[in-house]
Amino acid sequence: MPPADRTDLVQPDGRHVYLYGDFDPAPDGYQAPAMPNGVYQRRWNPLRREWVLVAASRQTRTFLPERADCPLCPSGPGHSSEIPAVRFEAAVFENRFPAMVPWPPAGGSCEVVVYTDEHEGSFATLPSARLDRLAEVWTDRYRDLTARRGIKYVYIFENRGEQVGVTLHHPHGQIYAYPFIPPVAATELGRHAGGCRQCELIHDELQARHRMLINEGGIVAYVPESARWPYEVHVATRAHRPALPDLPPAGRRGLLAAMQRITRAYDRLFDVPMPSMMAMHQSPAEGSAQAHLHVEFYPVLRDRGKLKYLAGSESGAGVFINDTLAEESAERLRALLE
Amino acid sequence: MPPADRTDLVQPDGRHVYLYGDFDPAPDGYQAPAMPNGVYQRRWNPLRREWVLVAASRQTRTFLPERADCPLCPSGPGHSSEIPAVRFEAAVFENRFPAMVPWPPAGGSCEVVVYTDEHEGSFATLPSARLDRLAEVWTDRYRDLTARRGIKYVYIFENRGEQVGVTLHHPHGQIYAYPFIPPVAATELGRHAGGCRQCELIHDELQARHRMLINEGGIVAYVPESARWPYEVHVATRAHRPALPDLPPAGRRGLLAAMQRITRAYDRLFDVPMPSMMAMHQSPAEGSAQAHLHVEFYPVLRDRGKLKYLAGSESGAGVFINDTLAEESAERLRALLE
Repeated sequence: MPPADRTDLVQPDGRHVYLYGDFDPAPDGYQAPAMPNGVYQRRWNPLRREWVLVAASRQTRTFLPERADCPLCPSGPGHSSEIPAVRFEAAVFENRFPAMVPWPPAGGSCEVVVYTDEHEGSFATLPSARLDRLAEVWTDRYRDLTARRGIKYVYIFENRGEQVGVTLHHPHGQIYAYPFIPPVAATELGRHAGGCRQCELIHDELQARHRMLINEGGIVAYVPESARWPYEVHVATRAHRPALPDLPPAGRRGLLAAMQRITRAYDRLFDVPMPSMMAMHQSPAEGSAQAHLHVEFYPVLRDRGKLKYLAGSESGAGVFINDTLAEESAERLRALLE
Repeated sequence: MPPADRTDLVQPDGRHVYLYGDFDPAPDGYQAPAMPNGVYQRRWNPLRREWVLVAASRQTRTFLPERADCPLCPSGPGHSSEIPAVRFEAAVFENRFPAMVPWPPAGGSCEVVVYTDEHEGSFATLPSARLDRLAEVWTDRYRDLTARRGIKYVYIFENRGEQVGVTLHHPHGQIYAYPFIPPVAATELGRHAGGCRQCELIHDELQARHRMLINEGGIVAYVPESARWPYEVHVATRAHRPALPDLPPAGRRGLLAAMQRITRAYDRLFDVPMPSMMAMHQSPAEGSAQAHLHVEFYPVLRDRGKLKYLAGSESGAGVFINDTLAEESAERLRALLE
């Protein structure tokens, strides 16, 4: 059952738009942007033993548009954006330049989650009412997409900053619904004699204390001992909860509030909006006893103006090199938490 | 037995330097640069099931020095570089800002391979005599490092361009000798009922033809069907050969000549020196029937001035998205081969 405050629309090219909460409809003369033709395939890489998604229409995708042309802003007279509404609270639409399409052989789904109709700001600056709504939007999308035939894993994430390739500045994230279990999830969910590795990790971090950032209301945040990125932070439910729907609404709000505190600390760390990735790891569609909801933040700066690059060791061997000590990173971030 | 033309030196801080071929010794007053103190650890990441290397002294490493201060150029009066010689043909030294140190608990080795004493140019422009020497230098380093106690895998690679974090422009590559089998190698070397996957791949690519770039003198080069990077190219021995020492010298020369042809095509593709990574995959130290020597090139441009970023899907889920068709990339590169 979709939530009562969700309105479903379908664009002329077949793409779905979901408006959450109150909105005012599109102006007269709204012209929905149309998906270009493209080639969508998935190809098996036998050496890496992984799927690679081929999406050969994305080369023409929208690249850092002028603010007046922002495709994630509300539509208006003379401006037809991706959102057929002149005002909205939160919106989700199927990406016009997707990495996967719902039909075979790619068989996945790529959605864009627009956090707010206000162009300025970021996840870090969302007012708490917007943040609470976003928790429910993510939960609805997770429920909806995991229930679809052929979908094996739903991955909620956000790329932030031009340094990680972001081409639109309006506050937004993405959701990929993969028709297979991605390699990182498969590794995390692998059999483990001791039960849940994430539970063990949280136990160990709570014992060690010196990498902990937040431990409140059933949510923990810490710099993992074996961080790959200089200021990597994980946010997780302290108790074993597989996915967002397994938390009560207050638990979800607590999770997002903790995530927001981390992103605010990031923005203070080098006095710039921190370019970063947010990766939410949850249960696969068919469920897993090993799954433990957690969010991983990968900020890509290692120092003021200095990027951490993924170079030969990371890309060609799979071995990450971290130039910082997780304990020192935790101390710096802790001092910046509000 | 080291080759007859190798001269071994040891810097005051204990780091080894190997000079290959003819050289003129350091000038009077040469002051060897010294390794700073640092913290070197390896930490096990239980979620990703991989080692992460912690190297907390590298934050101070040399960052895009002026040409006169290049640490890979020959030394001279008033300039003490990493190479205690005023002229040399090729040199290898233990990195002053390593990701691993030879002593416990990190227990690995990081070497820098200086291809030539000429500051300008790149692998793509090395004269054939230098290229032939480099083949023998790599072979010697592979032999030497795989024979060391505790070393499990020797990884020859090159990072090129500021876009992949290169901080020195002088033509050089690197070698990491890991005290474990890195994840990418472990996946490649995993059991496979049909025998060698690389042999199968080469067979399939030779049959398909349309992604092949080079098939000469026992060396093949092609854009793999499931390329992760828009212009990824693999160069391999057509026959099953585990590592450089298993080839005759002429075979090694042929491999490097093919690699050079690929890098020259890359530089012509967008009329700029292509920022890229080169990853050489060989047999682990203890040998493996599955190992098949091949070189993977990951150029990071997807178009003129446009980088391929590793963002949320790649970093958080392990799913690569390729905006190009391998077949079209192969066609473009083939037209640029000399």
